[in-house]
Amino acid sequence: MTSYLTKHRPGRTIFANPGPTNIPDSILQASAVPSIDFTDEDFTNNVYLPCIDGLKRVVKTTDGQIFLNAATGNGAWEAVLVNLLSQGDKILIVEGGFFSDLWGMMARNLGIKVDVLSTNVRTGVDPAELRSLLSKDTAHEIKAVCVVHNETSTGVTVPLADIRKAIDAAGHPALFLVDTISSLASIDFRMDEWGVDGVVCGGQKGLMLPTGLSFAAVSPKAWAATETSTLPKHYFNWRFQIQRIPHKSFAGTIPSHMFFALREALRLIEAEGGVDAVLARHHRLAEGVRRCVQHWGSGDKVVQKEGAPEIFCEDKTRYSDSITAILIPGEGKPAQVKQIAINLGVSLGGGIGKWTQGKIIRIGHLGDNNEASILGVLGVVETALNIAGVPHYAGGVTKALQYYAEQRIAQQTNGHTL
Amino acid sequence: MTSYLTKHRPGRTIFANPGPTNIPDSILQASAVPSIDFTDEDFTNNVYLPCIDGLKRVVKTTDGQIFLNAATGNGAWEAVLVNLLSQGDKILIVEGGFFSDLWGMMARNLGIKVDVLSTNVRTGVDPAELRSLLSKDTAHEIKAVCVVHNETSTGVTVPLADIRKAIDAAGHPALFLVDTISSLASIDFRMDEWGVDGVVCGGQKGLMLPTGLSFAAVSPKAWAATETSTLPKHYFNWRFQIQRIPHKSFAGTIPSHMFFALREALRLIEAEGGVDAVLARHHRLAEGVRRCVQHWGSGDKVVQKEGAPEIFCEDKTRYSDSITAILIPGEGKPAQVKQIAINLGVSLGGGIGKWTQGKIIRIGHLGDNNEASILGVLGVVETALNIAGVPHYAGGVTKALQYYAEQRIAQQTNGHTL
Amino acid sequence: MTSYLTKHRPGRTIFANPGPTNIPDSILQASAVPSIDFTDEDFTNNVYLPCIDGLKRVVKTTDGQIFLNAATGNGAWEAVLVNLLSQGDKILIVEGGFFSDLWGMMARNLGIKVDVLSTNVRTGVDPAELRSLLSKDTAHEIKAVCVVHNETSTGVTVPLADIRKAIDAAGHPALFLVDTISSLASIDFRMDEWGVDGVVCGGQKGLMLPTGLSFAAVSPKAWAATETSTLPKHYFNWRFQIQRIPHKSFAGTIPSHMFFALREALRLIEAEGGVDAVLARHHRLAEGVRRCVQHWGSGDKVVQKEGAPEIFCEDKTRYSDSITAILIPGEGKPAQVKQIAINLGVSLGGGIGKWTQGKIIRIGHLGDNNEASILGVLGVVETALNIAGVPHYAGGVTKALQYYAEQRIAQQTNGHTL
Amino acid sequence: MTSYLTKHRPGRTIFANPGPTNIPDSILQASAVPSIDFTDEDFTNNVYLPCIDGLKRVVKTTDGQIFLNAATGNGAWEAVLVNLLSQGDKILIVEGGFFSDLWGMMARNLGIKVDVLSTNVRTGVDPAELRSLLSKDTAHEIKAVCVVHNETSTGVTVPLADIRKAIDAAGHPALFLVDTISSLASIDFRMDEWGVDGVVCGGQKGLMLPTGLSFAAVSPKAWAATETSTLPKHYFNWRFQIQRIPHKSFAGTIPSHMFFALREALRLIEAEGGVDAVLARHHRLAEGVRRCVQHWGSGDKVVQKEGAPEIFCEDKTRYSDSITAILIPGEGKPAQVKQIAINLGVSLGGGIGKWTQGKIIRIGHLGDNNEASILGVLGVVETALNIAGVPHYAGGVTKALQYYAEQRIAQQTNGHTL
Repeated sequence: MTSYLTKHRPGRTIFANPGPTNIPDSILQASAVPSIDFTDEDFTNNVYLPCIDGLKRVVKTTDGQIFLNAATGNGAWEAVLVNLLSQGDKILIVEGGFFSDLWGMMARNLGIKVDVLSTNVRTGVDPAELRSLLSKDTAHEIKAVCVVHNETSTGVTVPLADIRKAIDAAGHPALFLVDTISSLASIDFRMDEWGVDGVVCGGQKGLMLPTGLSFAAVSPKAWAATETSTLPKHYFNWRFQIQRIPHKSFAGTIPSHMFFALREALRLIEAEGGVDAVLARHHRLAEGVRRCVQHWGSGDKVVQKEGAPEIFCEDKTRYSDSITAILIPGEGKPAQVKQIAINLGVSLGGGIGKWTQGKIIRIGHLGDNNEASILGVLGVVETALNIAGVPHYAGGVTKALQYYAEQRIAQQTNGHTL
Repeated sequence: MTSYLTKHRPGRTIFANPGPTNIPDSILQASAVPSIDFTDEDFTNNVYLPCIDGLKRVVKTTDGQIFLNAATGNGAWEAVLVNLLSQGDKILIVEGGFFSDLWGMMARNLGIKVDVLSTNVRTGVDPAELRSLLSKDTAHEIKAVCVVHNETSTGVTVPLADIRKAIDAAGHPALFLVDTISSLASIDFRMDEWGVDGVVCGGQKGLMLPTGLSFAAVSPKAWAATETSTLPKHYFNWRFQIQRIPHKSFAGTIPSHMFFALREALRLIEAEGGVDAVLARHHRLAEGVRRCVQHWGSGDKVVQKEGAPEIFCEDKTRYSDSITAILIPGEGKPAQVKQIAINLGVSLGGGIGKWTQGKIIRIGHLGDNNEASILGVLGVVETALNIAGVPHYAGGVTKALQYYAEQRIAQQTNGHTL
Repeated sequence: MTSYLTKHRPGRTIFANPGPTNIPDSILQASAVPSIDFTDEDFTNNVYLPCIDGLKRVVKTTDGQIFLNAATGNGAWEAVLVNLLSQGDKILIVEGGFFSDLWGMMARNLGIKVDVLSTNVRTGVDPAELRSLLSKDTAHEIKAVCVVHNETSTGVTVPLADIRKAIDAAGHPALFLVDTISSLASIDFRMDEWGVDGVVCGGQKGLMLPTGLSFAAVSPKAWAATETSTLPKHYFNWRFQIQRIPHKSFAGTIPSHMFFALREALRLIEAEGGVDAVLARHHRLAEGVRRCVQHWGSGDKVVQKEGAPEIFCEDKTRYSDSITAILIPGEGKPAQVKQIAINLGVSLGGGIGKWTQGKIIRIGHLGDNNEASILGVLGVVETALNIAGVPHYAGGVTKALQYYAEQRIAQQTNGHTL
Repeated sequence: MTSYLTKHRPGRTIFANPGPTNIPDSILQASAVPSIDFTDEDFTNNVYLPCIDGLKRVVKTTDGQIFLNAATGNGAWEAVLVNLLSQGDKILIVEGGFFSDLWGMMARNLGIKVDVLSTNVRTGVDPAELRSLLSKDTAHEIKAVCVVHNETSTGVTVPLADIRKAIDAAGHPALFLVDTISSLASIDFRMDEWGVDGVVCGGQKGLMLPTGLSFAAVSPKAWAATETSTLPKHYFNWRFQIQRIPHKSFAGTIPSHMFFALREALRLIEAEGGVDAVLARHHRLAEGVRRCVQHWGSGDKVVQKEGAPEIFCEDKTRYSDSITAILIPGEGKPAQVKQIAINLGVSLGGGIGKWTQGKIIRIGHLGDNNEASILGVLGVVETALNIAGVPHYAGGVTKALQYYAEQRIAQQTNGHTL
């Protein structure tokens, strides 16, 4: 159903475009309620503040504070930079792809010096290189290390615990700033345990919200840094936000519909068994996607078929559980597959930025998915490969579903009911 | 998302249960509007009457009249009987399965004599037998021949044009009454061309409405019969309904939300290219389902695998384009597959009535579907076959999607854009 | 907002048309959810059966049974007649207005003999007359006494307890059948205490549902009568419905969206403090409406102003707490006021049937109202009286709001917080 | 209906809190649709770009450009400052109340020097004083004059055309920056005609959107100023936004639901007859509110009653057509009236900032209102005055509705149908 667009397509589109994600009906409904007085303590106590607590559980912090804005994810990037840094400060951007690049460009635009640790974006950063680089910064000029946990444009997830260790091993005091926009509530993330100082989060991916609410989680160490930060700021100013009693985390008109939506999202997460249950589902569904794609590429063989689809990420330990980027050789083939897929009922993502634009399709399997939606997506992509004449081994979907069957049987054996 | 039920299941359930069907979001929204004054001529002229016209296009009548009720499909059955018949009249029920049986039981409860033309429910009626039977009724005691176009409980569609010919060949004046509940807007139906006198319709299947609006389409010959009908009636009384000016087809409080929903359903049908485009899509999607099931049963072989799924309908010319009933051998296996499927995100139908209860699962592929939803359903059913240990040839989904690819390529070759 | 109609009017229309009523947003949302498998025990146990229990609380029965249909209120009338009576049985219709008349016409259409106890419809039945009439029926030919509790077309509520006493005083065994369509959950009704045998109910008034769900509550005495009833029936056949395990109260496809809506309606009633709290609010709001109308008519004087509005009901003890019918003298004046009001944002009802058509406007103040909505309605009606040139004393709204203030102050004095 | 909050209140709350406003149902529905691919040209061409055109019509510009952000209104303030100014630049804030103050504070936080032209906030700025002040700035150190068109916290609207003339008369080249957050689509505003260089706009007031979309309209002169602006910026950077082809006005994830909502808002405005028709309605409804409040205060007398409500704005030519702030003498009285009103079904605003906190209530009569909603609000406020024991002349609502009647009669006389 797409009556809100001009072109009619029968059936409901499965939204596998990695951002925003497919929003559950109950969240859409929760967001579509009449205006309320956001100064009402009923709202504060029963909606707003419980949402803050819920977000802390999702990012796994007890020490951290949450600050929110009506903004896209880019807003949270800016919030973290302008609250923690001063003009002329230097930061280190760990290269991952389009989004880490953009974060760096933003920092430069804000008057921050940016060093970039270059990487092979198909594998992501080597922590040893990071350690080495930081060790050389004996003057501790680098004020912050900025890492995108899961690069949305490549489907590569970097190991934050190892990066934390690398920083520690270098004995470097830099703030550890992490973009979790496409990992939060989809891929394991542990703010306190991993010593993350500034967490950049958005609502429109794993939290399944309509676009427009972003937030940051801030460690005590980062909070201390806000005292000396001199970058000009107001809209994203945490020290201003904290003065708003009793919310202590927002300034200006509170977008109440977003908090009703967020409350529902948090309820859904709890109803599934908490964040860890959600992460486990994401891993299971993602692994099925990968088995499917690998089969398209090499079938039961070792060698990749000429011209066939291939997972963009080249490090199997860093496959993303929220997004699978798939290289499709052949000029225009990715766009063709994407276009066919939307007409068959699946919205895919394309490449973005210099590394992947025009070269890949991206399947977003984060958020509110189940075997049915993922198999629908994979079935449509395999159909589209056929139509577009992309070489591949048939039967990828079969591999995915057999994996899902095995996993469910294993769960059952472990005492779970199906 | 099932927050409205107790058990939480992540992801949106694909509703492949043959009734009601998966309602498009835009229809749900259209149905959820504040109350309006249904006596307002704005509503009458811009919603109610255009809906009547639209329904005529869907049943393909220009001569017929439409009468509606707030009721389930059973209500339309009753409307057709009580308006056209008198106590002690005899009708002939053409056996098809649970629903034709129930229609007969209803007729008996209403004081009508019921003859049943028995059939093999896996193939449906032989028009020659019908002709022979009617030819013997030289006294024309049979006042109506009642046929279920598509038996929801078996997935067998009977050829109405041939049945019309059989009645004509027998020179029999009986009214031709047809239940189109699970065929309307899904399987070709032509009221005027096929000389159908009373059409029994419901909104909750091919018309994609919430349950609760049923209607009948009435030929001039049937309308004439209402003059002599003496069965007691009020709620379903067409001659009472026709007195309501300007609607001429309803009595009592008009359920305005249903008409807003119906207007949107008719808009969706037109946006797709009209009823025939909708029927063509249903055929294409259904054929994919069948190729999948056949592969599960016999793979590339001729012989059916022991214990494997099998299409219930045994006449390939009568496969239903709205529902595929699938025999699954083994005590309790169909229920197990159905239960597993719902936990993976697909709601299937089970057997119903003496012929199929406990023996089959049913996939409803009518209404608002596309390749994505159907492949999601088939993927989940194949997963469930694996989990439940139902013998089958793997790769049914591949057969379906390859068929869809071929069809789309053929469309493209014929000048359609993909 | 009326985007679903052709004519645009700014602002939200307050729906004060007595049927259906202004449906709360949360009920509209609850009704607009995707299809679910209504055979799922989660639905049965957590939605369907709790709804049945809730309805029993609303009609105040512990001994009675509930039977439901996808139907308008007329369907419940028919259900009560066809399940309890046989062809040729006689019933007594207690005249009240258009709707009692129509119920009688229905009975005749169903083959039932109908006696009518005529009344002055501006006051309603005199129980003594009823007693007298029943006393004369020594042969007990009258099988049922049919009473409309609150006549929607006149705004007169009859005292059911007194009617029960009259039947008892006459020693008459007739079934006591009551239409509560516009009284349920708005005006005090006690099925068990008042010995009502068959209760006719609809969802679209006090229960605030979209039109399309009707139900009956059936006493043990009435249930016994179903055994001997011979009227033909199927759609409304309770003895068929009771065979459906585990629901025991429905046949055919269950309109799940209606039950989700009903569950929400029952939740709202409980959240307000239960049915009695809802009734008290209805009385308070209704009394304000009446004080306003009385002021328009006679101001601080005793005598009614020539040409001014007047409450249709002439017995102050029988004022309806769900609907106020207002006589407006002058050819075409009621229609003019109604038309002006809709353009100012209020949908009113008009007269209906021979007693009130063209003579009155009706304000429905039942369902989801508060002081704000009622004062908006009264303000608009007073505006419309000005525009239409209907003579009246200005300041009716002031009288209403002063009454509301007094009531709230009294509540406060009684320990309620405002 | 407030099921989304803990406290239950029967009836729908009329939202007369000046921000956000009462969102029409059709806008809520439009905002609650599944995610779509915002890079799809169908979205761009049929939703996004038409929204930009619509916004231009609303701000009445043909020369200006629109830039948008996912942000609250504060975000648009910041956008205008950081894109047009450089660190150390001086601006002049024309004092109006809390919001002009806050804008000034923001500017200081961003490193801008701020001069304030003090005013009596109950009347607002004297253009002659502004002229005089600017004339003294012969060095043209003031880079921008910042004016809040309608001060939300006081209900005073300043005459922008006169302010433009004052700037011109002073021969001053400063940019003219105007906050239209609570005036847009409610009070006459003409960007091009009045030579406004930067317009600060939000969606959640006259445009009736959920909170979270803000935008700026930028004159060619202002656009030229962006070239030399050196304030650090990224999230709100117009020169970055303009590079996004084909949108040219956004950066980052596009909140598609907001654009669907905005498209519907623009459709509603057109359906009413365009912006000027909307403004005329706002004026008419607002004038009724004022007549009511004036009657509460002084009845038919000249002198204000001791302790009675009074319009905060002391200049009759500057009454706001979107918000009426009402002084209520007596410690705690405004809060008491506000609390009572919410329990009777009306959400009011309170005072905000040093001038009005604790002293006033505010009625927001902007957005989707009609006579019904406004009379409901006034009726409830008069009820609350009674309950709270606030001295007043009874009958304010009567004055309002009589005014509405006169206005409608005058329209009728002028050939409009009612």
